[in-house]
Formats: sequence, structure tokens, C-alpha cells
Amino acid sequence: MLEDEWHETKIRVRYKDTDRMGVVYYGNYLTFLEISRAELMRDLDLPYSKLEAEGYTLVVTEAAAKYHGNVGYDALVTVRTRIAEQRGARVRFDYEMISEEKKLLVTGHTVHGCINSAMKPTRFPEGLRKLIQEKLKSLAGS
Amino acid sequence: MLEDEWHETKIRVRYKDTDRMGVVYYGNYLTFLEISRAELMRDLDLPYSKLEAEGYTLVVTEAAAKYHGNVGYDALVTVRTRIAEQRGARVRFDYEMISEEKKLLVTGHTVHGCINSAMKPTRFPEGLRKLIQEKLKSLAGS
Amino acid sequence: MLEDEWHETKIRVRYKDTDRMGVVYYGNYLTFLEISRAELMRDLDLPYSKLEAEGYTLVVTEAAAKYHGNVGYDALVTVRTRIAEQRGARVRFDYEMISEEKKLLVTGHTVHGCINSAMKPTRFPEGLRKLIQEKLKSLAGS
Amino acid sequence: MLEDEWHETKIRVRYKDTDRMGVVYYGNYLTFLEISRAELMRDLDLPYSKLEAEGYTLVVTEAAAKYHGNVGYDALVTVRTRIAEQRGARVRFDYEMISEEKKLLVTGHTVHGCINSAMKPTRFPEGLRKLIQEKLKSLAGS
Repeated sequence: MLEDEWHETKIRVRYKDTDRMGVVYYGNYLTFLEISRAELMRDLDLPYSKLEAEGYTLVVTEAAAKYHGNVGYDALVTVRTRIAEQRGARVRFDYEMISEEKKLLVTGHTVHGCINSAMKPTRFPEGLRKLIQEKLKSLAGS
Repeated sequence: MLEDEWHETKIRVRYKDTDRMGVVYYGNYLTFLEISRAELMRDLDLPYSKLEAEGYTLVVTEAAAKYHGNVGYDALVTVRTRIAEQRGARVRFDYEMISEEKKLLVTGHTVHGCINSAMKPTRFPEGLRKLIQEKLKSLAGS
Repeated sequence: MLEDEWHETKIRVRYKDTDRMGVVYYGNYLTFLEISRAELMRDLDLPYSKLEAEGYTLVVTEAAAKYHGNVGYDALVTVRTRIAEQRGARVRFDYEMISEEKKLLVTGHTVHGCINSAMKPTRFPEGLRKLIQEKLKSLAGS
Repeated sequence: MLEDEWHETKIRVRYKDTDRMGVVYYGNYLTFLEISRAELMRDLDLPYSKLEAEGYTLVVTEAAAKYHGNVGYDALVTVRTRIAEQRGARVRFDYEMISEEKKLLVTGHTVHGCINSAMKPTRFPEGLRKLIQEKLKSLAGS
């Protein structure tokens, strides 16, 4: 079932996240994307902090969002995240955000490049690559 | 000359804008886009505040960015902005960000819908529509 | 025991929260204060959203913080919060932030005024006032 | 004349700076303080970036603000800043923020400690110390 392939994170909207329109500022949704892919990585047992401790960094090369609906202060947003593609030094995440009332809020994706401690693009560390490929395979077979 | 059709805004990178990688956090570039389209609108003599006072609001329906290069604290970023398309209740802005060393940092676009005080999509107020269309015509003829 | 009188909230440090020094940006701790007093209010069964729905708003009139230690990305910060004083239209919250390693990070306080829908200072709604006074009494008696 | 001893920076309120109350979020004023003391340092010919290049960092040890009035989107805020005290590894800045209509918005101060590249508290670099002391002397004599 496809549903199962999405990782879910819940994020409470802070006062700080809102703007004078009374809803989440459009740029702040990119912070929500950051949180949810960090939680996905943590659940893969490969938190960013561990990755960085091993000398790798994921730099964002692309981000895109479509805004379908709004939420305001104190709303609990569900961010659904999945790894959509991984090749060479590159990985792509897809996202969907949904309100408590099951309203679609935002869809989007980010693309990341893997760089090493010398700041050069590099293939993903083997452990991470395998974990991601397994994730993608189970997704394709579902 | 195409160069002339782009509106330019300069933005100084704040400590607050940076993250632990030492460069501007990827989501904060969307704030830079906000500032530069607000300045473009101001130069068209139609600042957001005036638009909102007249009962119109521009809501973001789409945002996308490609990250080509990085800058850190205290850098002076030039954001080049232009209106790329306007039809019905919809307007699209294109952006390019460039460092002081003329390095390309970010390219992107945003799409906005015009809504009225009843929160319903609405055609652009006639004054704004004319100003935008003139801007687009002069661009096409250049 | 005084310990019991403090409300605790845990906050995970986001990439967005950090700055180029690799630690939480000093201004972002005020967002942590916001979150923790909102959670304290929620636990008093008087969430901000309910308060605002009833026509009241708490506006910050004072904020102060002392920075004793730092934490970086992905750290889990415990914010301990308590209502320290309430008189007329005014309430004061005290805060302490502690790292997972029990290091003291930040101490601080905020003062808030209660205003009504006409934006005028007003006594706290009776229900909230009672709840707060009970909280303060149990604290004094502890 | 005291007026002359205050350094002034003008900051335009961004949409991002506002919250659902329609005014600048209380924590974002600390970003305004950052900008204005950075500009004061730049005018002393000792920008932060130069200081950091020489191996020194100023870490915030204390921040406090009183909120007297509010401003919303697109307002132009004047931040007046001055060095109020400098001793050993410690410097204190005082601030006042004023709206275009000359309304007092925020008063506050920050205290900073100077640390070296080994992250140890250290006396200010001689050049900076002299510049600051001259500034303080001219202020005392005014």
C-alpha cells in the first residue's frame, strides 16, 4: 500500500510561523520540509548529525512548493515525506502537507547533493545508499 | 535591452539568515524573493500596503528555487526581479540572485493569485493590471 | 517541591534555528519561550487560541534572557516555565532552558499585558485569573 | 550633544517579520538589534566579519527589551544604538527603536563577551578596545 511508504511528521504551527495574513508564511513551509526529512532520516537510523559527523553534508540544490490551502496559529500540520529518487550524488524527497481537517496544504519536493568534507560532490556513503535503495525498492514493489 | 527590464534590489545577509553551514539557510531565500517583489511593486507605485488598503491581497500559489551557489554573513546579494506573466487573477515573477563577485546564487519564480476582501479569487484591480501589462509589453518589445 | 511547579516542554533544535556559529541564534530562544508558555497555557486548559477566540490577547511588554550555554543542531532543549506573578492586566512568566546533558542554557522572563478586542488593557478574564491564582498559591505553599 | 552619540540604522519591516497580530513578532526585534550593532561596528571600521577574520567572536550573554509600541508591515523603523560600557572581555550596547511617526517602539540592551578562536573569554583586541574607549569618552564629554 502506497500510504505506508510515506513517512509522517506532525508539526505544531508557532506564532512565529504566522504572518499578518494570519497564516503560515510561505517561506516557513521550507522549514517544515527540513524537519520532516530530518525525521525521515532519523527513522532510517541515519540522522543528519551522524551523516555530518562522518564528513558528509546534504546541500539543497532545488526546492519547490505549491500552496493549495492555508493554516494558522496552533494548527497541527502532518507532513508526509518520501525519498522519490536517488542517483550518484543526488537524492530527491517528495512532500505533502495536510491539515487536521484533512485539507491539502502544500505539495513540494527538494533535491539534495551529497558533498564531502572537502566540499566536493561525492557519491553517497555506501550505508546510506543501500538504505535508500532498499526503501525505494520496497516502494516500487508496493 | 533585457537588462533594463529587471528590477534590482540589494539585500545584506544578516547573522539571523545564516545556518550552521555558514551560509544563508535555503528557506530564507524566499524572504529575499518577498523583499525584491515588494520593492518592484513599490517602484511601480503600487506597494503591497496600498494594494491591501484597497482590499486586494496577493497570495502565493507556487514558489520554486534552484540553488547554484552560496553566500555567507554580511554578503550583499543582488536580487533581479521581473514580472514574467499576468493573466486573469494570476501573476508570475521571475528572480535571479547574484553575489558581489557576480556569482549566480539562486534562480526561481513565484506565482500569485489575487484575492479580494471576501477571500475570493478576483481579476487584478484595473490600475495594477494596466501597469503590469505595460511593463510586459515594453519587455516584449525590447 | 518547587521542581513540580515548573511546566516542562521539550523542543528539538532545527537547522533553521542555528546560525553560522553552529549554535541557536540568540533571538530564536524567544521563539522557544513562546512555545513553552503556549504549552503551559494549553495544560491549564486555556490555550491562546481559546483566549483569542474569547476576544483577549496577551501582548508582550517585556522580554529578557541571560545566555549561559549553547546548543547546536538536533539538540533537545527542555524549557521549564512558570507563572511568577499576576496582577491586574499583567502576568509574568519565568523560564529556564536546559540541555540533554543538564547544562544550563538560558534563563529569562517575559511580561505580558492583557488587552481586549478594542485593543485596550483589561483585567484578565475571570476564568484565567482564577486558574493562574490557584497555580500561584500552590506554588507559594510548596 | 547626546543625539550625536547614537548611531542610527533604518530597517524596513518585512512580511516575514510580522505575525498574525499584524505587527512585528517580539523575537524578531532581536534581529533588528543585531543589524544595528553590526552597522555601528561597520561605521567604527570594525565590521564583525573583520573581527571574526582576526579570530575574535562576540557572543551574546544577555539581551533585554521593553515593548512600548507596535509597527506593522512595510514600516520603516529607526534603530538608535550606542556602546554603553566596555570592560575587560565585556561590552554593552543600548538601543532605542522609533517609528516614522516618532513613536517609541522598543528600548533594550545586549551584553556581549569577547572570545578567541579557542572559544575562551579574552580581552578585546587592542584596536577595537581603543576605538570603543574613544567613543565612550566623547560620549561622556558631550
